Amino acid sequence: MSGGLAEQPREPTLEGLRQRLVEFAAARRWEPYHTPKNLAAALSVEAGELLEIFQWLTPEQAAAVMTDPERAHRVRDEVADVLAYLVQFCTAVGVDPLEALAAKIERNEHRFPVPGEGADVNPNKG
Amino acid sequence: MSGGLAEQPREPTLEGLRQRLVEFAAARRWEPYHTPKNLAAALSVEAGELLEIFQWLTPEQAAAVMTDPERAHRVRDEVADVLAYLVQFCTAVGVDPLEALAAKIERNEHRFPVPGEGADVNPNKG
Amino acid sequence: MSGGLAEQPREPTLEGLRQRLVEFAAARRWEPYHTPKNLAAALSVEAGELLEIFQWLTPEQAAAVMTDPERAHRVRDEVADVLAYLVQFCTAVGVDPLEALAAKIERNEHRFPVPGEGADVNPNKG
Amino acid sequence: MSGGLAEQPREPTLEGLRQRLVEFAAARRWEPYHTPKNLAAALSVEAGELLEIFQWLTPEQAAAVMTDPERAHRVRDEVADVLAYLVQFCTAVGVDPLEALAAKIERNEHRFPVPGEGADVNPNKG
Repeated sequence: MSGGLAEQPREPTLEGLRQRLVEFAAARRWEPYHTPKNLAAALSVEAGELLEIFQWLTPEQAAAVMTDPERAHRVRDEVADVLAYLVQFCTAVGVDPLEALAAKIERNEHRFPVPGEGADVNPNKG
Repeated sequence: MSGGLAEQPREPTLEGLRQRLVEFAAARRWEPYHTPKNLAAALSVEAGELLEIFQWLTPEQAAAVMTDPERAHRVRDEVADVLAYLVQFCTAVGVDPLEALAAKIERNEHRFPVPGEGADVNPNKG
Repeated sequence: MSGGLAEQPREPTLEGLRQRLVEFAAARRWEPYHTPKNLAAALSVEAGELLEIFQWLTPEQAAAVMTDPERAHRVRDEVADVLAYLVQFCTAVGVDPLEALAAKIERNEHRFPVPGEGADVNPNKG
Repeated sequence: MSGGLAEQPREPTLEGLRQRLVEFAAARRWEPYHTPKNLAAALSVEAGELLEIFQWLTPEQAAAVMTDPERAHRVRDEVADVLAYLVQFCTAVGVDPLEALAAKIERNEHRFPVPGEGADVNPNKG
């Protein structure tokens, strides 16, 4: 796998990272653990670890979290863990997370119309 | 925003979806709620809703979750919510989730070496 | 089970409620689902549902949560769910939650000494 | 506080532990952090830490979790943390967790009737 690193594009893509995660787990024979239920649990656990960074912070302290290098590192680390388990969960159940999010945004545009839109007389709005 | 839809690429990208989420929240004046602490909490809540689908399922039932159309819809919906809040959290703290994950994978490749690698005499392996 | 209600003490005890939960699950043949892993997942899911009530609230709104009858009902309902799954989890693994908490408080009294204590010259303090 | 330990009843009660937690936080001047929103987040985080113990275990391994002394200690420790934050949350919002659970059990007895009950001709059942 390390040989392939030189060929990685400069800007990582979600699909490229997904493939690296699949290879990473396969090389360590971790696939038997990566069931949908286990990955959903792990995703929830990691989201809790991200929240833990913020649990005792005031809104002001939370807004400045990235100015503290140690906290900033933890934030990036937990973001990575959440995304890794989300991507691995999606691989396990055969869902494309980008398509799922695109479809949800379209549903939400109907569910939560912009205030005043539709009845709005200003055609430039929205 | 709907005018822009026609110009969306066929395959959604994470950055394209991120921009749609930013516009979606701005149009509804939701930004004041989208603090790092609130978004970390919302991400954790949505990860819990994804886990809820699996909590009473056997490993076998969990593996077949996408064969049930109602459950499959819920899975896609919760995946979208988790990804949406993760992306919005990252926007709020100024973290690139793809870079964070790429960096984490590289750290993990050192932290969890493939069994037998390194001491391995076979230069073709890995 | 309803026959036993008349004999319930006025003030419910944790042990009394535990027994009612055991009977409740047994009468509905839910025990096969109540494995330690499933109950730990359900506990986490319900804790997320309690957090959901607060996720978009300012600290001031959160402090006044019980003045809103609908939110107050949800809070009591989710507290009950968290406690129910905690008690059922403890039953499944054979842990007494009150003893576990008493032991933890004693460990924490050593781990987080009161500031100034120890070096304190006043032997009556603490 | 240690002076009061000799007077603690052998069997800890939830109310006795609640008072010790209140004194513990007050002695360390932690009350400003113990807002309802922060405590709901901390409860969710700790529930995630309990789930973490189980996330990669098979149902069989999970059922035997207490036979491993190190895991058994972690389980008791996380149970204590979940209960501590639940009790502190309830104190912050003025909810009696035992009353909340008793009320929920009664609602659930109506919501999930025992199969066959009600229509049951045997008056001794239930």
